[in-house]
Amino acid sequence: MIQDPDPSKVIDWSERFADISRPLEIEVGSGKGRFITTLAERYPEKNFVALELQTTAAGIILRTKLEKKLDNLQIMRADAADIDAFFAVNSADKIYLNFSDPWPKSRHEKRRLTYKSFLQKYQTVLKDNGLLEFKTDNSGLFAYSLKSLNNFGMQFDFVSVDLHHEADEIVEQNIETEYEHKFASKGNPIYALHAKFQTKDL
Amino acid sequence: MIQDPDPSKVIDWSERFADISRPLEIEVGSGKGRFITTLAERYPEKNFVALELQTTAAGIILRTKLEKKLDNLQIMRADAADIDAFFAVNSADKIYLNFSDPWPKSRHEKRRLTYKSFLQKYQTVLKDNGLLEFKTDNSGLFAYSLKSLNNFGMQFDFVSVDLHHEADEIVEQNIETEYEHKFASKGNPIYALHAKFQTKDL
Repeated sequence: MIQDPDPSKVIDWSERFADISRPLEIEVGSGKGRFITTLAERYPEKNFVALELQTTAAGIILRTKLEKKLDNLQIMRADAADIDAFFAVNSADKIYLNFSDPWPKSRHEKRRLTYKSFLQKYQTVLKDNGLLEFKTDNSGLFAYSLKSLNNFGMQFDFVSVDLHHEADEIVEQNIETEYEHKFASKGNPIYALHAKFQTKDL
Repeated sequence: MIQDPDPSKVIDWSERFADISRPLEIEVGSGKGRFITTLAERYPEKNFVALELQTTAAGIILRTKLEKKLDNLQIMRADAADIDAFFAVNSADKIYLNFSDPWPKSRHEKRRLTYKSFLQKYQTVLKDNGLLEFKTDNSGLFAYSLKSLNNFGMQFDFVSVDLHHEADEIVEQNIETEYEHKFASKGNPIYALHAKFQTKDL
């Protein structure tokens, strides 16, 4: 049930979801899946895909999916770099990046999930006006990502440098990842950025 | 010696500075002037103007200017909203906004110095590729400003959500304001953003 596909072709998601016309949201790097399974439970009218490379973590997401009967959630053992191989152009409404590896060394810049080569792939997969929603506790990765998304020409929709102390309705809507829950309870700030791409000329 | 000019006309800065061909940098809201007087001392090859509305504060800057013989610093009792009245189009190399009033209430958004009507004026006064350098300790104002500058189409050059814990050369170059010095010593983060405007079509 975990997709481990041939990166040479786009997946036919209509075989995987009961109703393919529903909005599609993708999380890149789902870990144990607390965030994406909570989302899938809260929004049965949307389709969700969790990308997670690590087999053990992907297995934990699968267990939750089965326990909670989340038919609107698919799990895929896949690398973020292949996202444009698995999803059709203009097919997703949202992409979530939660607490991605900060890769703090300059020589690893290209591995950061907000590096321009990744942004290009997200832009391909997202519909026009689709949103990239990014959260992190890492100040270096956040500052880097603000600059990278801005320099890529993305338009900021929402920014917070202290997400857990925003107005009540924002805090209530926020779904915590495992990591976020542990980290924020120590009182450290959580950073968030929602942004969209300029309309594409494809 | 403190300029308190008629906002109906651009000031002839060549009467005020020994060499008008030098780079011009403006601080909007200088307070007691620790930042701008330190800058003026450090960079005798540049011209500086401190805008400060409050008479007492402007007087303190003037005293420092006289004590340190800072011929490259002028002080002006003026409102940020009149900046485009006092400076010629394309005349400044940098504008500094340091710890501006956050005006946290939504209904006061237009008073924030990073609101779009102010950005428009800074764009007029700045040369092409001129920089707006902004520092604050206020998380709300910083998040707001990131979005406002991004939505205005400005390009980010430098972003930090913890300026005092960046790499050594950045920390060394940073000149603290009075307020920053007091605030940062409590361990609270200082946010910084440097950005430039798209080339103008005037």
